[in-house]
Amino acid sequence: MKNELFKNGRSLILAYDQGFEHGPVDFNELNVDPQYIFDIAIEGKYDALAVQSGIAKHYYHGENTRVPLIIKLNGKTRFDDKDPLSLKHCSVRYAASLGASAVGYTIYLGSLHEQTMFKEFASICEDAHNFGLSVICWMYPRGESIKDEFATDTLAYAARVAMELGADVVKLKYNGDVEATKWIVKSAGKAKVVIAGGNKVDESEFLNMTKDVISAGARGLAVGRNVWKSDRPLALSRELRRIIHNLK
Amino acid sequence: MKNELFKNGRSLILAYDQGFEHGPVDFNELNVDPQYIFDIAIEGKYDALAVQSGIAKHYYHGENTRVPLIIKLNGKTRFDDKDPLSLKHCSVRYAASLGASAVGYTIYLGSLHEQTMFKEFASICEDAHNFGLSVICWMYPRGESIKDEFATDTLAYAARVAMELGADVVKLKYNGDVEATKWIVKSAGKAKVVIAGGNKVDESEFLNMTKDVISAGARGLAVGRNVWKSDRPLALSRELRRIIHNLK
Amino acid sequence: MKNELFKNGRSLILAYDQGFEHGPVDFNELNVDPQYIFDIAIEGKYDALAVQSGIAKHYYHGENTRVPLIIKLNGKTRFDDKDPLSLKHCSVRYAASLGASAVGYTIYLGSLHEQTMFKEFASICEDAHNFGLSVICWMYPRGESIKDEFATDTLAYAARVAMELGADVVKLKYNGDVEATKWIVKSAGKAKVVIAGGNKVDESEFLNMTKDVISAGARGLAVGRNVWKSDRPLALSRELRRIIHNLK
Amino acid sequence: MKNELFKNGRSLILAYDQGFEHGPVDFNELNVDPQYIFDIAIEGKYDALAVQSGIAKHYYHGENTRVPLIIKLNGKTRFDDKDPLSLKHCSVRYAASLGASAVGYTIYLGSLHEQTMFKEFASICEDAHNFGLSVICWMYPRGESIKDEFATDTLAYAARVAMELGADVVKLKYNGDVEATKWIVKSAGKAKVVIAGGNKVDESEFLNMTKDVISAGARGLAVGRNVWKSDRPLALSRELRRIIHNLK
Amino acid sequence: MKNELFKNGRSLILAYDQGFEHGPVDFNELNVDPQYIFDIAIEGKYDALAVQSGIAKHYYHGENTRVPLIIKLNGKTRFDDKDPLSLKHCSVRYAASLGASAVGYTIYLGSLHEQTMFKEFASICEDAHNFGLSVICWMYPRGESIKDEFATDTLAYAARVAMELGADVVKLKYNGDVEATKWIVKSAGKAKVVIAGGNKVDESEFLNMTKDVISAGARGLAVGRNVWKSDRPLALSRELRRIIHNLK
Repeated sequence: MKNELFKNGRSLILAYDQGFEHGPVDFNELNVDPQYIFDIAIEGKYDALAVQSGIAKHYYHGENTRVPLIIKLNGKTRFDDKDPLSLKHCSVRYAASLGASAVGYTIYLGSLHEQTMFKEFASICEDAHNFGLSVICWMYPRGESIKDEFATDTLAYAARVAMELGADVVKLKYNGDVEATKWIVKSAGKAKVVIAGGNKVDESEFLNMTKDVISAGARGLAVGRNVWKSDRPLALSRELRRIIHNLK
Repeated sequence: MKNELFKNGRSLILAYDQGFEHGPVDFNELNVDPQYIFDIAIEGKYDALAVQSGIAKHYYHGENTRVPLIIKLNGKTRFDDKDPLSLKHCSVRYAASLGASAVGYTIYLGSLHEQTMFKEFASICEDAHNFGLSVICWMYPRGESIKDEFATDTLAYAARVAMELGADVVKLKYNGDVEATKWIVKSAGKAKVVIAGGNKVDESEFLNMTKDVISAGARGLAVGRNVWKSDRPLALSRELRRIIHNLK
Repeated sequence: MKNELFKNGRSLILAYDQGFEHGPVDFNELNVDPQYIFDIAIEGKYDALAVQSGIAKHYYHGENTRVPLIIKLNGKTRFDDKDPLSLKHCSVRYAASLGASAVGYTIYLGSLHEQTMFKEFASICEDAHNFGLSVICWMYPRGESIKDEFATDTLAYAARVAMELGADVVKLKYNGDVEATKWIVKSAGKAKVVIAGGNKVDESEFLNMTKDVISAGARGLAVGRNVWKSDRPLALSRELRRIIHNLK
Repeated sequence: MKNELFKNGRSLILAYDQGFEHGPVDFNELNVDPQYIFDIAIEGKYDALAVQSGIAKHYYHGENTRVPLIIKLNGKTRFDDKDPLSLKHCSVRYAASLGASAVGYTIYLGSLHEQTMFKEFASICEDAHNFGLSVICWMYPRGESIKDEFATDTLAYAARVAMELGADVVKLKYNGDVEATKWIVKSAGKAKVVIAGGNKVDESEFLNMTKDVISAGARGLAVGRNVWKSDRPLALSRELRRIIHNLK
Repeated sequence: MKNELFKNGRSLILAYDQGFEHGPVDFNELNVDPQYIFDIAIEGKYDALAVQSGIAKHYYHGENTRVPLIIKLNGKTRFDDKDPLSLKHCSVRYAASLGASAVGYTIYLGSLHEQTMFKEFASICEDAHNFGLSVICWMYPRGESIKDEFATDTLAYAARVAMELGADVVKLKYNGDVEATKWIVKSAGKAKVVIAGGNKVDESEFLNMTKDVISAGARGLAVGRNVWKSDRPLALSRELRRIIHNLK
């Protein structure tokens, strides 16, 4: 692994793939600019920043390389289907050549197209192994066959499948239940669970959630909107690091 | 072949792909942990342990390599279709590099997608030949065109197709009929038939089934839940070995 | 070509792909065993035996290599569609490495999937050329657009397409009309026509059919059930050789 | 280019792909034999003969190589769809190895599958460039979206797309309008337009059509049935050469 | 990059892919001839000319190479679908060998097939990187899920996705709103926005639009019909250069 994303087994990741997944409706005049995000990632001492390959190509040069990079290898727009499919559009080789320390890929567990994503993801794990990169699985249950994407059984299944396909890290949403999360973390075996930040919420609520998931055994957060939509992103980042990395 | 899975033509295989196929609902606090299963496989002197590639990547190191490994190259979740498709998500080359002695693949005979699985499976046989690995076919009749997956004709057909595609070993469910199983075993020709353990049942019932299938010419078992859901897995394993390997 | 399948332009081929296409329902305790068939092929002095790759892998060793082998590169089960598709599941390279003298492939002319099979078949012809193997096209009109698979026009079309795609030999069913068969043979140009044996019929009826098709210009038979379901397979084989190879 | 198909910018091509596209119903006892066609092509001094790869494989040897060969790389049967698809079944490399001077491919403009054919055709142009072969596009508007395949706009569009995809030559049907054909020829730019002979018609009618299309700027004909169904094919061929090559 | 398409960050591109996308109905006796367009491109001092690969093959020789070339790698006809798909039919390697300085590709954002186009486009970006070519994304929202292709949010999303996939340049339609265009340009980050010329309109209207989009931050135009359907294309080109390149 080129850069260690996890320090003492914990990681604080800044996620910035929302421009692709949701569109610039998530952005304002500041955070529409990828440079603004790189600045937060570096000054906020994030363990990694997750972006699409095009952002890596255009922005991951010079000073910006001070933050380790995770390149997302697939992505879809908000114009998606009830049973979503998100195809790999960037090779592990190209991600490595752009400077990535790790690669990410989203699987929609339960989608009619899950076999296609399993196949692409497992192949990414094999390729990443050869390039010495870590692999992070964005694991979201979705599709007609998923009654409740937040059911503990479903989240535990998601965690398990990611690990059995070879993920080093699995990124999941939090269902608000600490005990359930312990079981989900166990289901993931040696794959490390990180929790998605999700929609922008009140700062103290977000910090409490962070404490809860860490106490349940999660290894960190992959946070986006709660940080870069905040009017005090560096102060919040400091709080998050304190919780996740157990600083005084 | 790197490790001989069959000793004097018989084999006792521990199967642990249920986390992928069914989800962690099959598990408890003990058997959710792959290490617990590796411990049973080694102490129970299993001839092989069957897992997905991600479990091999995370757990097949050090002491754990004392049990020969079968890596399943495909898999699907319980969110499947009436006519299931399970695609290869791991190459034979990668399985070999992870230390596998054999590779496994599931074919759903009779599914609308059977041609796709025949093609992938036969190609796996060709690749495995070059890497000196054995190939085990999980052969399950399934889909709208299958009226009764336990009909003797259907199971004999399943056994035959696996052999004609190049399987070294074919794993089938047992339909409870010893005479029928003799014909099924004959239909498989030189491919060795092993019987799937299936749902957890009463221990003496399970041992009787084992005796029956061995008497019908099956070469062993691929057993999972009946062992690792047992509260005395090592004692049961010892009984199974005694029957299958004809020990005193 | 490694072994010449045709002697003085004629050939008597033993076909044993029914276990795959129909299932073991075609078999009895004797002919379910591939070794029984190899024995008939060798003692009956067949010019070739046609099997799937798995049978080649398991049985084409030692004495059995005395009969030249044709490996079928595709196959489907009886659980098929109105518009059947049968995909290549064995490469020409692998067939050659298993000892094949020739390769076979089935095209369902008129099926909605005929383009896929044309593409695979022509590519097989190109590959086989490089390995010095002959190519035999099992050519069966099938699908919603085929009103009568035994119409002379349809069989002549089948023969023609096989030749124009590069077949060395085309295997067709016989429609019982000697004059029609002459036209079908002409439509095949330099590709050699052999006739499929079909369902088990009365022995004298089968010998008469053989005389008829040879008189119409066919170059031989690819016979299965009529021989290996016979209770005197070697005597019948001797009669067939006498007719086809014009022996006294 | 191995052999120049065009002499002073004009070409007379003999087409013999009807056995594949229509079946032997187009043939009689004479012209069912590819050798009969090769004889006409050579004695009739055709600039090229167009056939499928299988005919090349079986017949393009010895004296027959005196006529330059065009190998059709795709083809479909008369059992086709309202929106036809014809897939490449022969590589440019294999066509070159069989002795082709040029390769042909049919695109059904307007078919639901046109993207697939555009992709295959343009790739053929790229490959043919590397082998020094010319590429001829059989361009036929077809499918639900085509109201009138003989509309001038539609034929001009067909000519244009062939050129923009890289065709050296585009083969079109004639809509009987000399002025329209001038516009169609202009739309093809530097790609040379040749006109398809079509159904067998009265000889003088056919010669008049030939004069008309040449006067409109077409570079020649690709003629089949009108020649090889004629009872005086060589005399007719002489007339066609006279018109096309402007001989006295 | 072989030739710099942007001078001081601005570019005036001549587009001539309408023969493929719309057919020769867009043309007259003059502009149907690609040479006429090359003459305008060179005499009008365009920074680049965009064409399909076949036009490059037939016309990009000698004097014509004085204008840098953009080769479009996909294209579809007007016979398209509500949810359009346009597949890559030319490799970056072949485009480079034909002399291209840049390659172009159209994505229909929101189409049911967008994943296929994302995958092809991102792979083109990776390949182009290796050949030192720029990549221009023709980005058109289209399909059932797109209510209004001119909505600012939609155009900003289009710009963003192109950049995140790796486009160097994104070509968009103009929705007539200068302030909206500023936001769209910001959403594209370091990818340069150029505006499509669109249908032929009144010359002064077109010049005003050009001034507006440049004032909003667009880097130039990709103009076709407004120039080559003009009866004074060189005079108009001079005006456009004056605005875009800020000449006196």
